[in-house]
Amino acid sequence: MTTERADLLVIGASAAGLKCAARFRRLRPEARILVLDAAKDISVGACGLPYVVSGDIDDPEDLRKTAFDVLRDESFFASYKDIEVRTGVRAESIDIEAGTVHAATGDGTVTFSYGELLLATGAAPKVPSGMPAFSDRVRAVKAMDDARGIRGLLQTGQIEEVGIIGAGFIGCEMAEAFGSMWGCSVTLLEAADQVLPGMLDPDMAAIVESELRQQSVDVRTGTLVDRVEQSEGVVIHPRGAAPIEVDLVVVAIGVAPQVALAKAAGIEVGEAGGIVVDQHMRTNAPHVYAAGDCVECTSAVTGKAKMYALGSLANRQGRVAADHMAGRGSKFGPVAGSMIVKAFDLNASATGLTQGEAARMGKDVACVWGTFGDRAHYYPEERRVFAKMVFERGTGRVIGLQLVGRGDVARLVDVLSTVLLRGGTVDDLLDLEFAYAPPFAGALDPLHHLGAMAMAQQRDGVEPVGPTEDWGTSTCVDVRTPEEAQAAPWAGEAVHVPMGEVRRRVSELPAGDVVVVCEKGPRSLEVARWLGGLRDGSVRYLAGGRSLRQRDLG
Amino acid sequence: MTTERADLLVIGASAAGLKCAARFRRLRPEARILVLDAAKDISVGACGLPYVVSGDIDDPEDLRKTAFDVLRDESFFASYKDIEVRTGVRAESIDIEAGTVHAATGDGTVTFSYGELLLATGAAPKVPSGMPAFSDRVRAVKAMDDARGIRGLLQTGQIEEVGIIGAGFIGCEMAEAFGSMWGCSVTLLEAADQVLPGMLDPDMAAIVESELRQQSVDVRTGTLVDRVEQSEGVVIHPRGAAPIEVDLVVVAIGVAPQVALAKAAGIEVGEAGGIVVDQHMRTNAPHVYAAGDCVECTSAVTGKAKMYALGSLANRQGRVAADHMAGRGSKFGPVAGSMIVKAFDLNASATGLTQGEAARMGKDVACVWGTFGDRAHYYPEERRVFAKMVFERGTGRVIGLQLVGRGDVARLVDVLSTVLLRGGTVDDLLDLEFAYAPPFAGALDPLHHLGAMAMAQQRDGVEPVGPTEDWGTSTCVDVRTPEEAQAAPWAGEAVHVPMGEVRRRVSELPAGDVVVVCEKGPRSLEVARWLGGLRDGSVRYLAGGRSLRQRDLG
Repeated sequence: MTTERADLLVIGASAAGLKCAARFRRLRPEARILVLDAAKDISVGACGLPYVVSGDIDDPEDLRKTAFDVLRDESFFASYKDIEVRTGVRAESIDIEAGTVHAATGDGTVTFSYGELLLATGAAPKVPSGMPAFSDRVRAVKAMDDARGIRGLLQTGQIEEVGIIGAGFIGCEMAEAFGSMWGCSVTLLEAADQVLPGMLDPDMAAIVESELRQQSVDVRTGTLVDRVEQSEGVVIHPRGAAPIEVDLVVVAIGVAPQVALAKAAGIEVGEAGGIVVDQHMRTNAPHVYAAGDCVECTSAVTGKAKMYALGSLANRQGRVAADHMAGRGSKFGPVAGSMIVKAFDLNASATGLTQGEAARMGKDVACVWGTFGDRAHYYPEERRVFAKMVFERGTGRVIGLQLVGRGDVARLVDVLSTVLLRGGTVDDLLDLEFAYAPPFAGALDPLHHLGAMAMAQQRDGVEPVGPTEDWGTSTCVDVRTPEEAQAAPWAGEAVHVPMGEVRRRVSELPAGDVVVVCEKGPRSLEVARWLGGLRDGSVRYLAGGRSLRQRDLG
Repeated sequence: MTTERADLLVIGASAAGLKCAARFRRLRPEARILVLDAAKDISVGACGLPYVVSGDIDDPEDLRKTAFDVLRDESFFASYKDIEVRTGVRAESIDIEAGTVHAATGDGTVTFSYGELLLATGAAPKVPSGMPAFSDRVRAVKAMDDARGIRGLLQTGQIEEVGIIGAGFIGCEMAEAFGSMWGCSVTLLEAADQVLPGMLDPDMAAIVESELRQQSVDVRTGTLVDRVEQSEGVVIHPRGAAPIEVDLVVVAIGVAPQVALAKAAGIEVGEAGGIVVDQHMRTNAPHVYAAGDCVECTSAVTGKAKMYALGSLANRQGRVAADHMAGRGSKFGPVAGSMIVKAFDLNASATGLTQGEAARMGKDVACVWGTFGDRAHYYPEERRVFAKMVFERGTGRVIGLQLVGRGDVARLVDVLSTVLLRGGTVDDLLDLEFAYAPPFAGALDPLHHLGAMAMAQQRDGVEPVGPTEDWGTSTCVDVRTPEEAQAAPWAGEAVHVPMGEVRRRVSELPAGDVVVVCEKGPRSLEVARWLGGLRDGSVRYLAGGRSLRQRDLG
């Protein structure tokens, strides 16, 4: 039995592993670096797979290419990076004391001894119970072969009906890929009562769900799948509903970290299910690091361990591990958990915790919502974005942000995450500085508005009503102009008093509790603030206005 | 002589003044609030004027409207905000001890006594010497009448040739308005040796300049205008060049704060030319605040006073002033100075200091440059963005960022300003978290790349060559693939060794100093880092690659 020696041995040739190898090479020009992977396709940009299926990306191999059009295969890593990558080699056990890894190749077993070891074993698609074995008609979207296989079927006209199990971001992206590009009938089944669970709260997810329906996707939330049968076609059996016959089933209920190898070697795996690492990506075993989808991160909001399967984090973790192996003090800190997804013509992004998750973690949170344009309101092509911000009552600490709309949703989430990562409060949002010109933004940024709304609630007790909240017996006061009310009628009973007349018509307002409504929120907030001091009943305002409540995407 | 009493008296009915009044109203429902303005058009979104001229915005009055389509005139403020605005009233003097302001109306003089006074007198267009009086053929772009007047001439076909004096952002926006929308011949004259001085360094401004030329704008930098004559047509006399006959001259050489009223009252005006205020926007006179384009801000980079005429700051300052008047402790902190501009199909943004300005302030700075896509490189519709980051040698403190390209330039500048405002370093950029999905971004953000490049320079001495830098007798080594070199030949002498072959062909490389070149920068950085340890001569890399050097906008 041969033993090969590597200064750095990496298990897993995807984002985290290859980044670590490349960075270690830069810092240690003379080191021997070896990367093992059980699969044959390495360095797949898995986040791009839905776009291969859709045809947005023409050649599947593009996902494996560099920006300068060279395939990132074994020979690329050898010649460009001086890194040896071996595919089809499965690591089977780690002997921590000996500092060795036993691996199976096609020809037998090899032992590798390492100076430093990185576990970048990633995550594998979760499979619900009652599923047949994966086949060309029942698949996840995780490997190149999945994308190639599905696309092959599409191109030869073999798929008309698709069932997607799981409405997370892969599920929503795949719904678009099949529906928009190939004209397939898509049924999207989700066990939770909403699409994009974990990313959005139900009120924001409802906007995405209505877009999916608009685009002819048959969305079935709150639907458990008992089993899937494959014979000639594929039949999905949703609990309590008629079976659905489809040509293809895509399973997208999330991923589970691959930690069996680590566990068997006595490496600590945490309660969240991933390998436990310190801020330098070290495991509890000497000279053994881990990075990527197989490790637990620390939530910047809760300080607790949490799994995130995000390519952007994997890259940063790989770099930190290599730095530390080479004697540099880089650290990987707590994570905000920023995500973004495109579903048909709608964009959604989020960072931090949702209201639901924060409440489950025992936090006392409050929320504000808003309807914004992504440039000056008078500039052509302004596109709408809805926002929801979650913050902690009392301290005002920012907990999370969710955005959904036709407009840009990347900028705000990336800026807010900087505030969240440093433990900032809603007051801090007012100190943010933004580049402003009418083609790009408004003079007051949505984050300024959200900060001001949160402070109005915190300091002055001006309470919002959420877009899907029931306001019971409160009377609705619509303060929009007559022109607005005619153009977009309020779907419900309301007393109509334009804001410009409210001050002199206070006596006409209904007694008791009221909810003030306008088109996007600012006017009703202002009226509510002012009226609150003048009346007996409670005065709240409809956050995000009629637009958000009626999911009017503009 | 009558004396009127106001709890809050505001001089100037634009962004800062009106924001302060509105905020004070919210905090003090019973107060009497009075706003004076010498002009008749109030609450003009002046940043939108170029888009009125271009016709992008159809009705000039749109700039004065709320998002719900109501004109923000005197009656709007009366009925919606309970704020009294008086137009055509010019404040002529302030008596600090008496707490009064004397003002001229059409009918005579009025005295106002105030509880709190806000000076929001703004800034006026600078006028170069040798100019005739402003007329319908010689104008600035500052007031509604300017936009209305110019547009009237355009619509009646009276303007074919336009001369714009000053290539700052108003000048560049106006060049687009006249050129792109109305097909006018535009001559853009600028005294500095570059367009957008103060915002961009010459190397980045050159990209904007070449776009302007591409769009048929006759750009004349380094050109002083001796005088302008108006008789039937208008004649511009540039120094040392033939006179230019045009139908219209637009003056856009910047603005000067209007501080005469403050100065005469003994209110302190600083060396930068604006009213001196503390972090609560208080002047040195009791109960007198100032906000907007007439005040000095503190640069977050230098800690020194500087003038910024930015609508986004004016709004925030107005709010802080009102808060403090009402007993709240809000503060307005140091300013990064974030700016953004669209010129034809090119976007440019900046924050912090340019390399040139930092050097003039005595800072020892270094720079890195990059060529990036604004989404995953394999995703369709990826658009290019060039970046330049300035940082302090030694400390690594971030000093500024400049972006130019066809892609999105808002997100990165808004995120970087959060780092700059807290005095962050290039290392901190690697800890930023970004939402990633292929339609929105790459897995590694441009700010991660720029941070890593800066650290390579700081820690490992890998030195870039700037895109317009002369590299003397160094030999150029082009490490691109043969396909790339054929598709976009390198304009100059070079030894061609593809990166994949560099390791085994080291002996073929020329002796002496070399500059490694690739398409966008990362490969040449990596080769330079590695080669640096193996050779005698210096090894540098071309930052931003061939794309940036040859201003290839992609």
